[in-house]
Amino acid sequence: MEFVHFLQAARRIRPFIHHTPLMRSDFLSEWTGGDVWLKLENQQPTGSFKVRGALNKLSQLSPAEREQGIVTASAGNHALGVAHAAAALGLPQVDIFVPQTAPDAKLNKLRRFPIRLHLAGQTYEDAHQAAADFAAQTGALEISAYDDLDVIAGQGTAGVEIMADLPTAELILLPVGGGGLVSGVATAVCHLNPACHIIGVQPEASPAAQLSFAQDQAIDPYDHAPTIADGLAGGFGVRPFELLRQNPPEIVLVSEAQIRQAIVALLAEQQLVIEPSAATAVAPLLSGAVDVKGKTAVCILTGGNLAMSLLREIITQ
Amino acid sequence: MEFVHFLQAARRIRPFIHHTPLMRSDFLSEWTGGDVWLKLENQQPTGSFKVRGALNKLSQLSPAEREQGIVTASAGNHALGVAHAAAALGLPQVDIFVPQTAPDAKLNKLRRFPIRLHLAGQTYEDAHQAAADFAAQTGALEISAYDDLDVIAGQGTAGVEIMADLPTAELILLPVGGGGLVSGVATAVCHLNPACHIIGVQPEASPAAQLSFAQDQAIDPYDHAPTIADGLAGGFGVRPFELLRQNPPEIVLVSEAQIRQAIVALLAEQQLVIEPSAATAVAPLLSGAVDVKGKTAVCILTGGNLAMSLLREIITQ
Repeated sequence: MEFVHFLQAARRIRPFIHHTPLMRSDFLSEWTGGDVWLKLENQQPTGSFKVRGALNKLSQLSPAEREQGIVTASAGNHALGVAHAAAALGLPQVDIFVPQTAPDAKLNKLRRFPIRLHLAGQTYEDAHQAAADFAAQTGALEISAYDDLDVIAGQGTAGVEIMADLPTAELILLPVGGGGLVSGVATAVCHLNPACHIIGVQPEASPAAQLSFAQDQAIDPYDHAPTIADGLAGGFGVRPFELLRQNPPEIVLVSEAQIRQAIVALLAEQQLVIEPSAATAVAPLLSGAVDVKGKTAVCILTGGNLAMSLLREIITQ
Repeated sequence: MEFVHFLQAARRIRPFIHHTPLMRSDFLSEWTGGDVWLKLENQQPTGSFKVRGALNKLSQLSPAEREQGIVTASAGNHALGVAHAAAALGLPQVDIFVPQTAPDAKLNKLRRFPIRLHLAGQTYEDAHQAAADFAAQTGALEISAYDDLDVIAGQGTAGVEIMADLPTAELILLPVGGGGLVSGVATAVCHLNPACHIIGVQPEASPAAQLSFAQDQAIDPYDHAPTIADGLAGGFGVRPFELLRQNPPEIVLVSEAQIRQAIVALLAEQQLVIEPSAATAVAPLLSGAVDVKGKTAVCILTGGNLAMSLLREIITQ
């Protein structure tokens, strides 16, 4: 994927999203001995970076595709991204499938959009199957959350912004689920500064990216264990895998307890509400699994849609 | 105070602060039937708007004043503002007095600055007395948190930004303590659009501004009842009073329970960590005490330094 694809994506989505702040974390800098910055994608409309890819994809539909309708499945944030993009672009027919277990923070926001919302099954895979069935029956276009080059180009614009705002960044930590973000950001950043190191972080419960690179094939779907990082659970997409296989990012795994600690630390030290899938990126800095001493590092805080029930549980433990 | 004073303040402080985002609240807009926006001053460096006034004040010190040193007392956020401003401007001698009861969110951040931090007494008044004694003994210049025209002009720049970003704003709600913010914003906004209505919100436990306007004299200090809105407890300053007495803002009082509800609502619906003194401004919209149906309203979220202990207590009630 060429750099021009990211610039085109950035131009398409600019009217509808924020160039989000890159905030220095005094706390994480002191803790690690590095110069640590946070990319606040939780401040995007809908509370996550997923609007980037959704907007880049949906803004390129043909009139026939718009008319025929779109359908998507999501653990929540991609659904919100698609709903927001569809509303911004005036798409008339939008069906969205989410698992019944999606956090209230995401469901409450989804219900405010003029979409047809379907609750389907317990996991992302259940919702994805229901969406695929719906697409087959109706002819609606299915919008993948990560296995789509336009979505990937959109997510990569976050990397372009980081390099524009902090060209001295030596290392970028980001959470990895299906691979849309990591493949987009790694590809875009590599065009600008090939020496910038990308570290993808996955929950131990769902290490599909790590396994995919080890086995040299995309594993999707992946039969994951339970994790509070709902947005990262599941397989690693074919297109992300193909983009990254020549030069795979380092993948680090973190435990559920480490993810919880990261949520608490971001809340107590930075007054940021960050959802588990996003706090995952910070966990290796807190545990010391990734050493950034003397380095300039960026963590992408991908989303802030933390369920109140989980917040209550975590901070009263 | 002329409009040029606010423009000069804005120019002085611009290199060191953020022009903070004005974010539409879908939740509060739906709840109230109005068009409600949030001015995110919690995103300033140090987590509150207080850096504005502190920077405008400290950037105008004479060489002799810089050398002699400065001292201030604060419930926390003004202290952080002064510490940040002093560090940005390279002031060598900074003594800061805060009550022992200041939230950990504020104390933890203060300890990262190269200042002499003194914990003094239980209330803002105790800390203020200790700071005044220190100033008398050492000749250090005492920097008032609110009773100073340069501080007031700095705080008013938040109002200039609101009118620049949302010229159609009909109503601005903001929390009122010593009066630095309300007098600065009301004066600045009045120059730009005299029809824009300013509503100051105080905790029932500390209605010094309301009493000051009712009795036509500034009441400072004021012997307040306990309140979780630590930044608003105490008297209303003479200079804020003089600026506002010809055309006083509407003052609304809210209960402790309403402040807690506002903190929870901002957390659950907006994923924002907002401290009690700031959530106060949103409380009258939730309770319906202020009706903004059909109107464009802005709430200034003045700060985000919420103590974890209080957060834990509030969300588990």
